[in-house]
Amino acid sequence: MDNRPIGIFDSGVGGLTVANAINKLLPNETICYVGDTARVPYGNKSKMSILKFSKQITNWLIKQNCKVIIIACNTASSLALDTLKLKVSVPILGVIDPGVKWAVSITKKNRIGVLGTRATINSNVYHKKIKEENEKIHVFEKACPLFVPLVEEGFIDGEIPSLISNYYLKELKMAHIDTLILGCTHYPLLKQTISDSLYPSIKLVDSSLATSKELKSLLEKETLISNNEKGKINCYVTDYTETFENVVNRFFKYNINSIKRLDVF
Amino acid sequence: MDNRPIGIFDSGVGGLTVANAINKLLPNETICYVGDTARVPYGNKSKMSILKFSKQITNWLIKQNCKVIIIACNTASSLALDTLKLKVSVPILGVIDPGVKWAVSITKKNRIGVLGTRATINSNVYHKKIKEENEKIHVFEKACPLFVPLVEEGFIDGEIPSLISNYYLKELKMAHIDTLILGCTHYPLLKQTISDSLYPSIKLVDSSLATSKELKSLLEKETLISNNEKGKINCYVTDYTETFENVVNRFFKYNINSIKRLDVF
Repeated sequence: MDNRPIGIFDSGVGGLTVANAINKLLPNETICYVGDTARVPYGNKSKMSILKFSKQITNWLIKQNCKVIIIACNTASSLALDTLKLKVSVPILGVIDPGVKWAVSITKKNRIGVLGTRATINSNVYHKKIKEENEKIHVFEKACPLFVPLVEEGFIDGEIPSLISNYYLKELKMAHIDTLILGCTHYPLLKQTISDSLYPSIKLVDSSLATSKELKSLLEKETLISNNEKGKINCYVTDYTETFENVVNRFFKYNINSIKRLDVF
Repeated sequence: MDNRPIGIFDSGVGGLTVANAINKLLPNETICYVGDTARVPYGNKSKMSILKFSKQITNWLIKQNCKVIIIACNTASSLALDTLKLKVSVPILGVIDPGVKWAVSITKKNRIGVLGTRATINSNVYHKKIKEENEKIHVFEKACPLFVPLVEEGFIDGEIPSLISNYYLKELKMAHIDTLILGCTHYPLLKQTISDSLYPSIKLVDSSLATSKELKSLLEKETLISNNEKGKINCYVTDYTETFENVVNRFFKYNINSIKRLDVF
């Protein structure tokens, strides 16, 4: 048994989809969530900056005595996970591997699509990892940089997201994929719109569910499961804004413990 | 005569519209431009963060021996100018006052619209300053948070910007304004789209031109004009990205001197 918190971080609100999935699957765990809202978004920034931000936040989470770290951001998972693994003494998980494994296990036509930020797609990580799992799979990737601001602004359905989604997905529609990885933690909020731009039979892979399952296996294997009666959720943000508070409250209506401002830089 | 540089800063590429206008009007001046690309955008962040970022960059510009500082960002001008004025020993100009004075001088119906980021509109600065100039003027404001990501992603015309622009401007269209302040340095790049969403007779106020004229008057009055044969433009960014380099080269094809990475935090 281990009652230390699980550290989760993201550039902003997107990683709350992962925190939410973990909270549902592991309700006894205490979560320490950091949203880097002062520097959001990460998706259009350089590897150097994303690595620097990820290191600053991971160091802070380690100081909070976290027993495991989840990088709940595809961009930071793509560009910082390998470096951070070498630097921290606790287990650290990203959201890429769980999504890749799930997608590879369900595709029947061996044709997988991947949507992500520009930094994630340019990193080529999804392509590489899918090919490592099964080199026969054809991978079709597309950067969708306007999806994050759409979600952050609350445009999750209606004419504007539809038009932008149709614009980004027009080539993927011709690629005859049967599985699509939503390679950014914001994108599950646009699930219906994305599905409508393609075809109803397509299987969408939301990495937050896959990541929470992988975390559960890890905690069980390493005997790190908590026996708290009920987990708490403590949120920290580098910039305190009303938008973040609203989204947090929407996700964790009943068991949110606190939202505090954090100065890491 | 004073050959020290003019310091200009913005959250990212938007302020280049101001730097460009200054370079055209005052070609002998050396410009030291900072784009805070690691933390862009500012428009949805809190006053506390915007003030902190603006202070860090202003302190750095003062150390570069700038003779005057231009805050080429409406959000930072709205939230940080008054505080910074008390802290720095050189003249410091924002982009709000020049735009307000110009708009007030050209409106005939005394009905002015203002577009800006959420932080700018919530600050109420435009409303207050226009009323200070002429309390009879009716002011109609609208936050357009998706305009900055659209411009940063290069969507400046076509169906997507049109739909978003029509969505944001539908109430302003009913307000019978004759003058509209583009209260964000990114928005002049959407000039045609914005104009098409309203009516052709509307007068659009681009603060970059007004600011460059106000700077010229100030330099002449304080005898701070440079007698360099030709001005240089030195750019500094907190995150080095290809997008920034492309935009800089588009604006300053012939006289860009350097683009360097700057670590202020």
